Amino acid sequence: MIGVFDSGIGGLTVLKALLNRRIAKKFIYLGDTARLPYGTKSPQTIRQYLFQNIEFLCRYEVRAVVVACHTASSVLEPNDRFPIPVFEVLTPAAEIAARCTKTHHVAVLATRTTVLGRAYERRIQALNSQIIVHQQACGLWAPLVEEGWDDDPMTNLIVYRYLAPLLNKNIDTFVLGCTHYPVLKAAIQKVVGSDKFLVDSGEALADIMAEKLSPILHRASLRSFEPRLTFSHEFEIASIPSFEILTSDPSPVFHLIAQKLMNPYPIEKITQVNLQRSHKL
Amino acid sequence: MIGVFDSGIGGLTVLKALLNRRIAKKFIYLGDTARLPYGTKSPQTIRQYLFQNIEFLCRYEVRAVVVACHTASSVLEPNDRFPIPVFEVLTPAAEIAARCTKTHHVAVLATRTTVLGRAYERRIQALNSQIIVHQQACGLWAPLVEEGWDDDPMTNLIVYRYLAPLLNKNIDTFVLGCTHYPVLKAAIQKVVGSDKFLVDSGEALADIMAEKLSPILHRASLRSFEPRLTFSHEFEIASIPSFEILTSDPSPVFHLIAQKLMNPYPIEKITQVNLQRSHKL
Repeated sequence: MIGVFDSGIGGLTVLKALLNRRIAKKFIYLGDTARLPYGTKSPQTIRQYLFQNIEFLCRYEVRAVVVACHTASSVLEPNDRFPIPVFEVLTPAAEIAARCTKTHHVAVLATRTTVLGRAYERRIQALNSQIIVHQQACGLWAPLVEEGWDDDPMTNLIVYRYLAPLLNKNIDTFVLGCTHYPVLKAAIQKVVGSDKFLVDSGEALADIMAEKLSPILHRASLRSFEPRLTFSHEFEIASIPSFEILTSDPSPVFHLIAQKLMNPYPIEKITQVNLQRSHKL
Repeated sequence: MIGVFDSGIGGLTVLKALLNRRIAKKFIYLGDTARLPYGTKSPQTIRQYLFQNIEFLCRYEVRAVVVACHTASSVLEPNDRFPIPVFEVLTPAAEIAARCTKTHHVAVLATRTTVLGRAYERRIQALNSQIIVHQQACGLWAPLVEEGWDDDPMTNLIVYRYLAPLLNKNIDTFVLGCTHYPVLKAAIQKVVGSDKFLVDSGEALADIMAEKLSPILHRASLRSFEPRLTFSHEFEIASIPSFEILTSDPSPVFHLIAQKLMNPYPIEKITQVNLQRSHKL
């Protein structure tokens, strides 16, 4: 089992990418809705939440935890040590973007907080200092997704508004730097052009995890152990993995938006948990 | 001194209405940014926050507390007892709306959570059961305000989109049921027509407070005590009242949006506080 957490609902696009790639047979997702959003809070506070959420997921005997939240990913530090492997969403997307750009102009589309924190910019330029990173805060995109307007002419207008300043800058790679944005992929691709590369942080992470976790998971499932260092499609599990969704506070609208984000995977139920207490599924 | 609190920034429109009406000489505003938003959390959790925030403000020896948050206002119960008068934003707006409508069709424009909770509908119909309340969730309006797009053609389109279903329903009174919405007043008035009445919950509250608090405040400032039972414009304090803004978590963008909401009153500084500890200004 793999644990995934986000401050709320957006990380479900990451969970879906992991399901699509059959990274594990079983997933547990925690939406920390009691304390969302993380983006407006201080790094110290977010680090506290991060450690609490990882510890909470460890109670379910997960073999790895995915931090499916850009803000929480950005406060992880190189010296942090955890009892299990912890993956975050920033580095894989930065790696894929640095690898893919031919023009050496990469755009990062994100929330205002992520843009101010410059986490993507730093990671991409650490990989290749010649890459020019154009950051663009797209404050209304996540609310648009939560409003369910992803397939709407108004959304096309708003998507265009944020992308217009980037269109004549020779950018060939656009990082979707917020977990809500994959829902807007079609609208974004229409504006930037079909020859441009969109980096979905969930998919980038699923690729990296398939590469790095495969030996751990094989061992766990008592199969023959073989280290894999290349991207592997053989790694797929034939049946659809199962997943459980937990939230730290009930919300009357979570289920509605969650199902939209998880389509075509049906959400059977959403369980409310208290992060201070122990729970057994 | 009067204490005002909200989950974040929106309550500043209420503070501004109280400043405009010179309800007191001094105000202290608490934006509980560490725990926002309240709208997605359970009533039990919000009640806990409500009591904590009132207790916190009482440490500053305030003479009254204003709950400038629709979600927190909706969880107050008739039997709740506090050491000082506590005012909330729902009832005054409901009273003004019930008093003003001639057609007996009132619209409530609010967030999805407020609409689902039906707090305005219940209050208005308790005052006059013949009034038909049309609720409309306007999910993108608060994000639009926070994005600073209040004076933008896109905003006019989005405002129209939410209001269009209400335009042929003989509604003459529109309650702005979220503290962010007064910023969009001009755009809303343009769509509904200049003959329609917009109820600003902050202004409605300021009217009610001028009426009810006037004796308390007069006593407090050692002026002659005279109970006032009618709306009173004489009650004005000549000089501009002072105000202090506290937040429970630092946010890099709070100041920017806060200043926009408070214009023309300049925000001198924003102090970060820990709600668990005592602070002296």
